[in-house]
Amino acid sequence: MQISDLNERTLIQRIAQLLPRHNKNLVVGAGEDDCAVLDIGGDDYFLLTTDMLHRKTDFPQQMSGWQIGWMSVAVNLSDIASKGARPLGILMAMGLPPDTELDFLEDIIKGMDDCARKFNTHILGGDTDSHDELTMTGTALGLIKKKLLVQRKGAKPKDMICVTGNLGSAGAAIMFLDKGISVEPKILKALFEPAPRINEGIALVETCAVSSMMDISDGLALSLHDISKASSVGFKIYEDRLPVLPEVTDRLEGNELLEAVVYTGGDFELLFTVPPDKLGIVRSACPLTVIGEVINEGIFIQRACGIEELKGKGYEHFGTRISPKSV
Amino acid sequence: MQISDLNERTLIQRIAQLLPRHNKNLVVGAGEDDCAVLDIGGDDYFLLTTDMLHRKTDFPQQMSGWQIGWMSVAVNLSDIASKGARPLGILMAMGLPPDTELDFLEDIIKGMDDCARKFNTHILGGDTDSHDELTMTGTALGLIKKKLLVQRKGAKPKDMICVTGNLGSAGAAIMFLDKGISVEPKILKALFEPAPRINEGIALVETCAVSSMMDISDGLALSLHDISKASSVGFKIYEDRLPVLPEVTDRLEGNELLEAVVYTGGDFELLFTVPPDKLGIVRSACPLTVIGEVINEGIFIQRACGIEELKGKGYEHFGTRISPKSV
Repeated sequence: MQISDLNERTLIQRIAQLLPRHNKNLVVGAGEDDCAVLDIGGDDYFLLTTDMLHRKTDFPQQMSGWQIGWMSVAVNLSDIASKGARPLGILMAMGLPPDTELDFLEDIIKGMDDCARKFNTHILGGDTDSHDELTMTGTALGLIKKKLLVQRKGAKPKDMICVTGNLGSAGAAIMFLDKGISVEPKILKALFEPAPRINEGIALVETCAVSSMMDISDGLALSLHDISKASSVGFKIYEDRLPVLPEVTDRLEGNELLEAVVYTGGDFELLFTVPPDKLGIVRSACPLTVIGEVINEGIFIQRACGIEELKGKGYEHFGTRISPKSV
Repeated sequence: MQISDLNERTLIQRIAQLLPRHNKNLVVGAGEDDCAVLDIGGDDYFLLTTDMLHRKTDFPQQMSGWQIGWMSVAVNLSDIASKGARPLGILMAMGLPPDTELDFLEDIIKGMDDCARKFNTHILGGDTDSHDELTMTGTALGLIKKKLLVQRKGAKPKDMICVTGNLGSAGAAIMFLDKGISVEPKILKALFEPAPRINEGIALVETCAVSSMMDISDGLALSLHDISKASSVGFKIYEDRLPVLPEVTDRLEGNELLEAVVYTGGDFELLFTVPPDKLGIVRSACPLTVIGEVINEGIFIQRACGIEELKGKGYEHFGTRISPKSV
């Protein structure tokens, strides 16, 4: 059997099964959440995540060096944000084609540094390697007070489902790029210069009112399936409540719009659940949109034409063309 | 200018110059040592290192999946070992060709897990990505008591220069593979299944008698140049004191032997310096060979035919074919 015969989440499960949880320091391990969570004593947990991006699937030719550097840091910070942690630093291993122009590399480094600094963190070190294909593997580190950690598990029936920001901007940009048609700068920026929700993540967990959280870089639908699995609950969301920019709704409609908004991925927003009586305090932490509620089982979307099952599909590394983010 | 016009160390310097040291937590940063060193409070420093390896330059076709997994962990642990730290865990981002057989991937995972467990640590998490070329980026974490940290800087004139283990085994294996001639299993194992000197590193720093240390995976000569630069000292080593296995000396001689032993790289041994009056206590920590002494300036090797300057050449990612380790 070849690995392309499996979907990515099944593959990750197979890998995780080969890596027994025999580590007393490991609170959350391989494949269970957006970050590995380590307990090394003291009041804080230590969070770790790594993401490999590369030219063919993650960096379309339209991207500048600066944007490549920015995104390589942002995708890792988004995982730290999704647990509500403060970033402590970034390592970046860079596989560089030997004919890379030094100016281009310096733009990449500046993009990395700008993204790290924007979110109050730093590039700590890294590695350079000669590689046929430009390949960027970042590792992000974060700290969080133990009592504040929010995981994928923890959602309860009747909780409200919330998201930060807008959905579908990156997905629409991918569609327009795929079709070779013009893309509004605002939409293209959402895809090429994602802003990890570090500040929102920190503010959200400090309310102590968020029951589960993850980022939706692989798409809202797949992320709902991930939280569903971790929390043993279901979801019902409402299409007419999904926050989407007019630049997207003006140009897409029907199933194509739904595809961009819930399935394609690339939006670096936070998806989280909140008990209904705590929605007020959470609203004070950061702007959010309530898109549905937690139910006992099944994952559904209410559309104008009726209720539909929301499939567990989204960005998968083994098959799709452009992805801004890995798991 | 293209990056291939620069050697790797110059490139790393250029990158480090773009990343100002403005982080109060960062004790040792990008490009300065084998690991980044973070101070997050408490009695310990937190060490971090990342290495990208890939099929074309690091995993010859003769390597098994298990060996690829083992090496991907070992190269990162070697950096942790070189500072005398205890490993806390490994993250592994894997870029996998879609036609990779699941059995082969499972062998890689087993090799990763076996190497981690052999050195009392664990795979904490990672990432999977579809990539044309098999690419493995590991990140290793370590902890060390602040007072025990040993860096590249710290060597003093008159200190003795020491190494663990044998030199040139991996270099000889690379030469034999390049020539397409048979390689003794013991020599091939040194190249394909390197054993990071975790236990030796810990024992060495606990003596509080080691003045500087690094690993020599990029070759003894380049590593001496690195310590020379960090410590502002010179070195004199003696060719007839270099520990080399008979399997290597039986088949190589003269400049070819010297090439394998000091320039080629791939030996995951520790290079360290010790004040002469403390050699006794350090010898009790682990087996070692004294190969020379620290001098004021210049880097020389005493050979049978006279004294020669030891050039700062070794494994470089931008140009060389097989490398077991990046910086």
